[in-house]
Amino acid sequence: MPKDMLDKLLRPLKADIQNVEAIFQNILSEMEEPLRSMLKTSLRGGKRLRPALVILAGRLFKTPRLKVHLLAAALEVLHSATLIHDDLVDNATLRRGRKTIHTVWPIGATVLAGDYLLAQSVCLLAQLKNPGVLKILAETLHTMSAGEIEYHYSLKNRKRREVYFRSINAKTASLFAGAMEMVGLLSHVEKNTVINLRNFGHEFGIAFQVVDDVLDLIGDEKSLGKPALSDLEGGIITLPVICYLERGNDDRIINKILAGKGNPKDSIRATEMIRKSGAIEDALTEARAHARKSKVALAHLPSGKYRQLLYDLVDYVVDRQH
Amino acid sequence: MPKDMLDKLLRPLKADIQNVEAIFQNILSEMEEPLRSMLKTSLRGGKRLRPALVILAGRLFKTPRLKVHLLAAALEVLHSATLIHDDLVDNATLRRGRKTIHTVWPIGATVLAGDYLLAQSVCLLAQLKNPGVLKILAETLHTMSAGEIEYHYSLKNRKRREVYFRSINAKTASLFAGAMEMVGLLSHVEKNTVINLRNFGHEFGIAFQVVDDVLDLIGDEKSLGKPALSDLEGGIITLPVICYLERGNDDRIINKILAGKGNPKDSIRATEMIRKSGAIEDALTEARAHARKSKVALAHLPSGKYRQLLYDLVDYVVDRQH
Repeated sequence: MPKDMLDKLLRPLKADIQNVEAIFQNILSEMEEPLRSMLKTSLRGGKRLRPALVILAGRLFKTPRLKVHLLAAALEVLHSATLIHDDLVDNATLRRGRKTIHTVWPIGATVLAGDYLLAQSVCLLAQLKNPGVLKILAETLHTMSAGEIEYHYSLKNRKRREVYFRSINAKTASLFAGAMEMVGLLSHVEKNTVINLRNFGHEFGIAFQVVDDVLDLIGDEKSLGKPALSDLEGGIITLPVICYLERGNDDRIINKILAGKGNPKDSIRATEMIRKSGAIEDALTEARAHARKSKVALAHLPSGKYRQLLYDLVDYVVDRQH
Repeated sequence: MPKDMLDKLLRPLKADIQNVEAIFQNILSEMEEPLRSMLKTSLRGGKRLRPALVILAGRLFKTPRLKVHLLAAALEVLHSATLIHDDLVDNATLRRGRKTIHTVWPIGATVLAGDYLLAQSVCLLAQLKNPGVLKILAETLHTMSAGEIEYHYSLKNRKRREVYFRSINAKTASLFAGAMEMVGLLSHVEKNTVINLRNFGHEFGIAFQVVDDVLDLIGDEKSLGKPALSDLEGGIITLPVICYLERGNDDRIINKILAGKGNPKDSIRATEMIRKSGAIEDALTEARAHARKSKVALAHLPSGKYRQLLYDLVDYVVDRQH
């Protein structure tokens, strides 16, 4: 799928996305310095995938647009907040082609800026006056922070498939699942439909993250907006690496890099070995399986042009190059 | 007022406080390691002043106890979460006589543990199913994080009285004010009563923080549970220092310490100079003025034994030695 495919896909939502962007502008305009300078790049840019999913799901049920835009904005703000703290935790240097906040500002300011955006996210959601939606927000943030702590500071065996999936559920899929569940609550749909929405979001999120992890291995810094191979060098073992190891391949270079003893040549060599082993294809097969499951859940939701766009988004997510 | 005065004052609330503590125990028991080890001291100990105020205010309006306990627990959890992040921002080493979390655990884990408690706080409040209460929570967190960023990373003239009061409003009084407003919403009282509750909380919070700042200068590490003089050495200029400077006293040692060039002898000398100047009494006079204002607001609330306890708490706050 070509690079501009996402823009083309989301064209029917242009007016809605602009409304969501206007909410971000409004948030930024209310900030004092230095907060505004710190956060303006956090709230600008990004694929806006979460807002797009929320808007499309809202269309399925003809949910009032104002509510949908608030929800879409709140979740993108929450996503931005967690990225700020996670980049600090992972010591990531680049995000969307720009320096991460903690590499430019003091750590304390970075922590507080993330807290500020978390508060903003709750502020936006509180406007919906739906306690169920806020409960899901809290549970999702709960899952995300507990999962990150577990992965970084407790889990011993990161080479296990179930550890990987547990981690990407907490990190990524829980927010997609929660987002879709919130649309269900806002739209007053029946319980089974909420479950299908949640399942769709969960499987979409898993597929999205697996592909993200593949791109970290096979992409380049320019198209990724962050250094390639940052996961492995940061001690994070993603699915393609797990697939490579499961095939019984030589694990010495991988272990050397994970131990922080690798040099740039080792990283290039490891990537070559993983690519040649067929592990990339194994991981993508797994991503496609989750994409299929997300489509199965979608099939239970109201048909029409917006459901078709959601199917197309699923295809985009597994076929994208960045 | 003797040291155990607070315990004696809060004796009529013993059963309520135990219910709130049971909520904390429940939260801890649901945590996985290493979160539980990280957070158990955060959720144990402390004066429980915020829960006590919430419980007493709830009694004024005979608000259902289960709701009041949830609110009291949520606000104490929020307070603990902000302390974790603030201690990291201020690089504080001790809290309640124990090492702060970021001095024992990695910074990333500390950030995420604070996020986890923030999420817990929202989870508890969401159980109240009152969107107005959640809105105040979000606005309060908003004020707190924006205020801390402004104070630490933007404000130039910390020696100005209005900068000090703006900062302690954001850091401390906003949460007391928000807590009292939330009790008002939960108790379905009329608008004027909500305003009086809020004013009471705000003035109480200001008085409390001014006294805290005085104790930092005149207390010792053992009774404070944290190093004395930590504010000045950390670049934070509190009211007694401002009063000292306003009296036209020699500011050379103060400036030396603020510039990070002071030694332990300078700190002792500065404290002596501030004490002898009468600035401590100036600051306490200011604290008493805010305490009086909080009592004026209290006078508009329903009379009886619980209001009397609130008056007594105001006295405790200005007369306490730790």
